[in-house]
Amino acid sequence: MKNSLRIVKIGGKIAENPSTLSRFLDDFIAFDTPQILVHGGGVIASEMGKRLGIKPNMIDGRRVTDAQTLEVVTMVYGGLINKRLVAHLQSRGVHALGLTGADGNAIQAKKRPQEPIDFGWVGDIESVNTDLFSSLIDQGILPVLAPLTHDGKGNMLNTNADAIASYVAAAMATHYEIELIFGFDREGVMDSNGVVAALSMEGYQKLKSSGIISDGMIPKLDLGFQALTSGVQSVRIKSATDLMNRNAGTELKHV
Amino acid sequence: MKNSLRIVKIGGKIAENPSTLSRFLDDFIAFDTPQILVHGGGVIASEMGKRLGIKPNMIDGRRVTDAQTLEVVTMVYGGLINKRLVAHLQSRGVHALGLTGADGNAIQAKKRPQEPIDFGWVGDIESVNTDLFSSLIDQGILPVLAPLTHDGKGNMLNTNADAIASYVAAAMATHYEIELIFGFDREGVMDSNGVVAALSMEGYQKLKSSGIISDGMIPKLDLGFQALTSGVQSVRIKSATDLMNRNAGTELKHV
Repeated sequence: MKNSLRIVKIGGKIAENPSTLSRFLDDFIAFDTPQILVHGGGVIASEMGKRLGIKPNMIDGRRVTDAQTLEVVTMVYGGLINKRLVAHLQSRGVHALGLTGADGNAIQAKKRPQEPIDFGWVGDIESVNTDLFSSLIDQGILPVLAPLTHDGKGNMLNTNADAIASYVAAAMATHYEIELIFGFDREGVMDSNGVVAALSMEGYQKLKSSGIISDGMIPKLDLGFQALTSGVQSVRIKSATDLMNRNAGTELKHV
Repeated sequence: MKNSLRIVKIGGKIAENPSTLSRFLDDFIAFDTPQILVHGGGVIASEMGKRLGIKPNMIDGRRVTDAQTLEVVTMVYGGLINKRLVAHLQSRGVHALGLTGADGNAIQAKKRPQEPIDFGWVGDIESVNTDLFSSLIDQGILPVLAPLTHDGKGNMLNTNADAIASYVAAAMATHYEIELIFGFDREGVMDSNGVVAALSMEGYQKLKSSGIISDGMIPKLDLGFQALTSGVQSVRIKSATDLMNRNAGTELKHV
């Protein structure tokens, strides 16, 4: 039987409010099997970019990671947010260690092709160093992952935190029974009846074509279903502040 | 016989100029025993603080790490500079992994007492997690240390990079034969005849009382001699861009 591993993804915002962070971490560390924490931070990085006078460079409503923006996200994700989470976990006696994809070659990515749209220093994940993660977990260490990868040529790359969580979950599924949780600021996937308790790929397609699921929820669900079809045991989308209620939110189902 | 370990400290500035960084890293990785790299970054953090409109808060010519400054150094040291070094080392096939003192509880410190002067969120090192460093080194990993520690209560602390190098060297000296190099932007300790090739504690006191050694060189040499008296085999202060010349710079001597 495989050992269990829980992978929890949270937005960066949760680390900004001390009381929200404290409540989240109390719930997070109450879990009794090994875990990996993945965090975002786009909103905080945008605020920092603004303070530094860096004009957001947008194409089709999506942010372009130019060289200056890459510096900001490397600072904010890899430094500010990651170390805050690690220091707080350590203060709770959890042996946390922060990583970007460059650290220990944890996650290598390829710079996204410039065609049809040049999104700049953005990485599409190519490989996950499962040996590194397994070794850290075996040593009782809890990896805290920033949404940054590297290209193996000396460049950091901005990488979506949901993608980090999904790819790491999929890669680790060979060795562990994985529970993947996408925590965010809503209760789950919503339809006209409220939170959808279980969502199949077919149900997802229906909600998507009727426009009930749209925008940022689509890549999140695509990544969730991708993890599920890659052998991840359980994928759930729920409020990051409702970790203790194991049946809350939306569970993704094969059928 | 103990295994060898080389600990090299560099300023943050070296990571800013691509050609200087490239030359340094080529020399750094040419060494054939395990290493730890420690970097600073005060100048870059000051520039970033200025861009963010944070007024430097100085007492007696020394920077006070207020809450805003702590955020800046956590971003710049833990994110920007640390990840740039790690990504570049990885691109050279070196299995680097970046750490602050919080990561894996690598280095714990105590917030400096507010009396007689309150320097803010500055840490004085209390303990080094030698098990973590030994375990990483045994796995072929090269730790890259940012000048940040944590207090075990959830707070990051700004900590002098020379102190990080000296304390880690002293702690690891129980397990390894350590060569400690303080790399900086001069050729070594200078007197009227040029570079002092070997400096004893007695010689240091003389140069200090005659005013030939002053300012920032004093804490650096104090930390160097502290490492030496703690069992570090070899301590040398030299130009960071002259690593290959093993006899360059100033070697600290017991007598």
